[in-house]
Amino acid sequence: MGLFSKDIKSMDDLFVHTLRDIYYAEKKIVKTLPTMIEKASNPSLKKAFESHLKETENHVARLEEVFRMHGKEAKGVDCPAIDGIIEEAEEVAGEVDDPRVLDAALIAAAQAVEHYEETRYGTLVTWAKELGRNDCAAILDKTLAEEKAADKKLTEIAVGKVNMQAAE
Amino acid sequence: MGLFSKDIKSMDDLFVHTLRDIYYAEKKIVKTLPTMIEKASNPSLKKAFESHLKETENHVARLEEVFRMHGKEAKGVDCPAIDGIIEEAEEVAGEVDDPRVLDAALIAAAQAVEHYEETRYGTLVTWAKELGRNDCAAILDKTLAEEKAADKKLTEIAVGKVNMQAAE
Repeated sequence: MGLFSKDIKSMDDLFVHTLRDIYYAEKKIVKTLPTMIEKASNPSLKKAFESHLKETENHVARLEEVFRMHGKEAKGVDCPAIDGIIEEAEEVAGEVDDPRVLDAALIAAAQAVEHYEETRYGTLVTWAKELGRNDCAAILDKTLAEEKAADKKLTEIAVGKVNMQAAE
Repeated sequence: MGLFSKDIKSMDDLFVHTLRDIYYAEKKIVKTLPTMIEKASNPSLKKAFESHLKETENHVARLEEVFRMHGKEAKGVDCPAIDGIIEEAEEVAGEVDDPRVLDAALIAAAQAVEHYEETRYGTLVTWAKELGRNDCAAILDKTLAEEKAADKKLTEIAVGKVNMQAAE
C-alpha cells in the first residue's frame, strides 16, 4: 500500500484488501499449525489441530477461487493482527513447561486465531453480498462455518477434558 | 516474563497471565476508541463507539476487582495480539478517504477487537470456574456478555446502514 496515497477508494477495494489480509493469515496458520500439533499432548487436541490443518489448506484454495472469480490477483498483504496473535501464542507457550497447562494455553491461542478468522470472514460475507457477489459470499460462508465449528470443538475439548485435567 | 525460565507453572499462573494480557488490551482500547469516535461519520456508529468507551472503562475497573479478589497485583503484560489488531486498523484507516468506506473499515476493525476480547474472556471464565473462582467467573462473564452485545450492535449497524450506504 502506498505511504502517501489513499489506496482504498471504494468498498470493492476494501473487500479485496481484506481478502488479501485473510489470505496472508490463512497461509501463516498453515505454517504454524504443525508446531501446535507437535506441542499438544492431549490426543483429542492433537487430532483437532491435524484436522484443522487440512481444513485450513482448503481455506487457502477457496480464497484463491474467490480472487479468480472476482478477477483479482491472489496475493497477501501484511496482516499485523495475525502476526501479533501468533507471536503472543509463541511467547506464552514458551513460558509453560507442564504439558497439561501447555494444552490449555494452546487451546486459548488457537481460539484467538479462530475468532480473528471468524470476524474477518463474517465481514467479507457481508461485503460480498453488498457488492452483488453472492457467488463469492457463498464460498466465504463455507469457510466461516468451518471456523465456527473448529472454535466450538476446541471449547468442548477445553471444558470437557484438557483444562479439567490441567486444573487437577 | 523471564527469558530463560518457564514462568507459567500452573493453571493459576496461566489465568493470572491472561488476566494481565486482557488488562493491557482493555487499557489500550480505552486510548484508541476516542480516535475511532472522531473518525466515524455515521451517527449510529459514533454513538455505539461512545457507549462502548464507557463500557470499556468499566471493564478495566472490573478486571481490577478480579485481581483484588484473587490476591494479585493489577498490572498489564505486553499483548502483541491487541497491538497487532490495532496497528492493522490504523494502517487500513489511513488508506481510506471516502467517509462511508471508512465507516465500514472502522466497523470491521472494531469487530476484530471485540472478537479478540470475546475469546479471551470466554477462556478466562472457563479457567476461573475450573480454579474454583466462581466469584471471579461471574464478574468476567458480565464483561463477556457486554463484548458480545457490542459486537452484535456493530453487525446490525454494518448490515442495516453503514455498509449499505458505502456500497451505493
